[in-house]
Amino acid sequence: MDAFPRTALAIGQAIQYGDIDPVALTQHCLDEATASDAVFISLTPDRALAEAEAAARRRQLGIPLSPLDGVPLAWKDLFDITGTLTTAGSRVLAKTPATRDATAVRHASGSGMVCIGKTNLTELAYSGLGLNPHYGTPHHTPAGSEPRVPGGSSSGSAVAVAKGIVPAAIGTDTAGSLRIPAAFNGLVSYRPSQPRHDRHGVTPLAETLDTIGAIAPSLSDCLAIDDLLRGKKVQTREPADPGRTVIVLDTTCLDDERLEPGVRQNLENSAERLAQAGFHVIRRPIASIGETLNLIQRHGWLGAAEAYTEYRGLLERDEADRMDPRVRQRLLAARSMTPDSVVTLYHQRQALQNRLRQELAGAILLTPTVAHAAPFLSPLESDSEYFAKINLATLRLSMVASLLDSPAIAMPSGVDENQQHTSIQLSAPSGGDEILLRVALAADEYLGADH
Amino acid sequence: MDAFPRTALAIGQAIQYGDIDPVALTQHCLDEATASDAVFISLTPDRALAEAEAAARRRQLGIPLSPLDGVPLAWKDLFDITGTLTTAGSRVLAKTPATRDATAVRHASGSGMVCIGKTNLTELAYSGLGLNPHYGTPHHTPAGSEPRVPGGSSSGSAVAVAKGIVPAAIGTDTAGSLRIPAAFNGLVSYRPSQPRHDRHGVTPLAETLDTIGAIAPSLSDCLAIDDLLRGKKVQTREPADPGRTVIVLDTTCLDDERLEPGVRQNLENSAERLAQAGFHVIRRPIASIGETLNLIQRHGWLGAAEAYTEYRGLLERDEADRMDPRVRQRLLAARSMTPDSVVTLYHQRQALQNRLRQELAGAILLTPTVAHAAPFLSPLESDSEYFAKINLATLRLSMVASLLDSPAIAMPSGVDENQQHTSIQLSAPSGGDEILLRVALAADEYLGADH
Repeated sequence: MDAFPRTALAIGQAIQYGDIDPVALTQHCLDEATASDAVFISLTPDRALAEAEAAARRRQLGIPLSPLDGVPLAWKDLFDITGTLTTAGSRVLAKTPATRDATAVRHASGSGMVCIGKTNLTELAYSGLGLNPHYGTPHHTPAGSEPRVPGGSSSGSAVAVAKGIVPAAIGTDTAGSLRIPAAFNGLVSYRPSQPRHDRHGVTPLAETLDTIGAIAPSLSDCLAIDDLLRGKKVQTREPADPGRTVIVLDTTCLDDERLEPGVRQNLENSAERLAQAGFHVIRRPIASIGETLNLIQRHGWLGAAEAYTEYRGLLERDEADRMDPRVRQRLLAARSMTPDSVVTLYHQRQALQNRLRQELAGAILLTPTVAHAAPFLSPLESDSEYFAKINLATLRLSMVASLLDSPAIAMPSGVDENQQHTSIQLSAPSGGDEILLRVALAADEYLGADH
Repeated sequence: MDAFPRTALAIGQAIQYGDIDPVALTQHCLDEATASDAVFISLTPDRALAEAEAAARRRQLGIPLSPLDGVPLAWKDLFDITGTLTTAGSRVLAKTPATRDATAVRHASGSGMVCIGKTNLTELAYSGLGLNPHYGTPHHTPAGSEPRVPGGSSSGSAVAVAKGIVPAAIGTDTAGSLRIPAAFNGLVSYRPSQPRHDRHGVTPLAETLDTIGAIAPSLSDCLAIDDLLRGKKVQTREPADPGRTVIVLDTTCLDDERLEPGVRQNLENSAERLAQAGFHVIRRPIASIGETLNLIQRHGWLGAAEAYTEYRGLLERDEADRMDPRVRQRLLAARSMTPDSVVTLYHQRQALQNRLRQELAGAILLTPTVAHAAPFLSPLESDSEYFAKINLATLRLSMVASLLDSPAIAMPSGVDENQQHTSIQLSAPSGGDEILLRVALAADEYLGADH
């Protein structure tokens, strides 16, 4: 897609100007997708070309359905798309093709976006690294370099965008599954508060934690797509006034020795640039973050209990032998969670949500998205114990926003000494999506990947 | 209190007319309470008399704080009252006297009600029968008859009212702990939707199920006290128009062979009287009730998991040996609940709340409060296995409204062939308190105990 503009909104505009033919663009995306390795699980060329042709006709008539009419979009293979199997990255889950689109897919097509196909992911979306023994592990490491993990679970969505196959792709985020692959690939993603989206037709992992969103190089694209997936028009949002915005840099995360130096340095640089831009940047420990980390440490991951509840039936069937043994093992491990831990996690998450709201008092939270850059793939493939350790370390920070249902935006913060992407996260208390988006838009003017 | 009017509102009115001296009334209540057996755990005579004297002075000045200014009230010993131990019916829980009033106590005193003392209950409020090996089991069986259980856990509150020691008493309801003792003693009680009350200073049993309310002979008293406990003025509520009110008699409960014939007959009689009064009484099965019962049957009682979470620390200490072994055993049994059962209970209760709302479509639900009348006390004291079986049978129906957070009102429906009280329950979907109250007020005109 090198001949095309990089962002979805710019492509949408070029289509309306007549500078890009959506059919040619779609065919190009399909060709690139076909040539890629392990990025897609299935393609929907008939639908894609039909949707592109319809967009081209609307363009001729001057009646676009949205600013993204005719723009290609890929979907993590958790979303039902009529006539395709929803594999969820598994070999055992899907038996018959979906008979209708997921609500978000229907809304995207209703706004003119072109459905290219379905991207790879960790089986059942249950890991933060993105490995998949069934469909291969996609990655975007330069040729000749030792491959690194794509991040997960929305691995194929991030790699499809990073490789320029599509301008944006949809994923899901239960514990970091949008933000981690965005972080490892130098992209933007926005994990919304859970009630923001209708998840009908999306294969679940953890009922009270699953969220959906886009991965893209551009924040504006993520927000425009978020509007469209909800069946709304693309909103015009006024960036927040830096002089009236307090950003709290949480020193609990910053002082943690597990934070890689490159991640810390780029976070400090981002904070510095935001301060120079006029934001009120305050450094202090946010107790509710430390308490959330302690809660998870002590009582386990609520998503594990919910995922086990969701897939207990599958685990009891013979075909569970054909699952990724690491995913199956992780699911089964939740059986040992005690009932009081589950109760405590549900209750404390509410208390901690309120605590975070009080602590921030209207400020926006700045933290690392992940404590490290993308690790090498090969040792993770061969060593299950090492994999389990790194998987937890990768998910550790992003889980906090998930448990507290905080809307959270992962944004690139630069590269480390190995030229690996690092990422910062801006987040807000649950339900504070619109305030967060306005602050992120303002911050993006000074930090954005495209500047 | 035989010389005094029977209802709290009538007493309040008589005080304002100068027909009753609140100090004399309070002294009379304290004397009766002192003379009673196992009904109270502690009395607060100094506070009671000081509050009664203050009420008498306000009466002289013509500045009553509420329609219940000067009216005596007793509190289940779960409520913090400054300077008293909150025993929760246990010998091991309270170490030091409360240093402040529970919010509800503060509001009651702020409306002029007189705090008489603290009533007996099942230890930790964790049984529906009302037995207490530490403080004795109160009952209101006529002299010479074989004693029957008081119902629990708000046993002392119901018996204090049934014996006429106080016109009303406060209890709590987690799985039926207001409604069951009200049912067994021919009294009224109203279990509100949980968010209606501030439970600060009330010893918890199950965080998402505990509710607070009054037990009284009169529905109007229960509603007036409910207003006052919330720090509101007593509301004037217009009874619903029977001709515009649909009452659904759930045939799932009615057809259950475990329903005692006397309970069924009196429920049928009540339905008949309501129909004659002009209510649209419809008989049909409410599927969400059967599904809730199945959910509990299959996955256990959510309150058990929450109570175990609350008291796990206590259970691990040596002093747990001094607990009622049946209560301790019931608490410990929750350890065997699986994490997926807890997750399923939390999620399904939400789904079933919505389902009930759809099924009722604005109608009010009519069911039995308890499937049987009060059983004899003696065999329950001696046989733990029989106790466990009857306890579950007693709680079975009232648990449904608790799990669905339905506001529910237990009202007397007559007596059975053994002259034992039976009770019907009117309930509504969660949050439908005010509609339920208006319908109950209208129904009470035809069914009320005082008519």
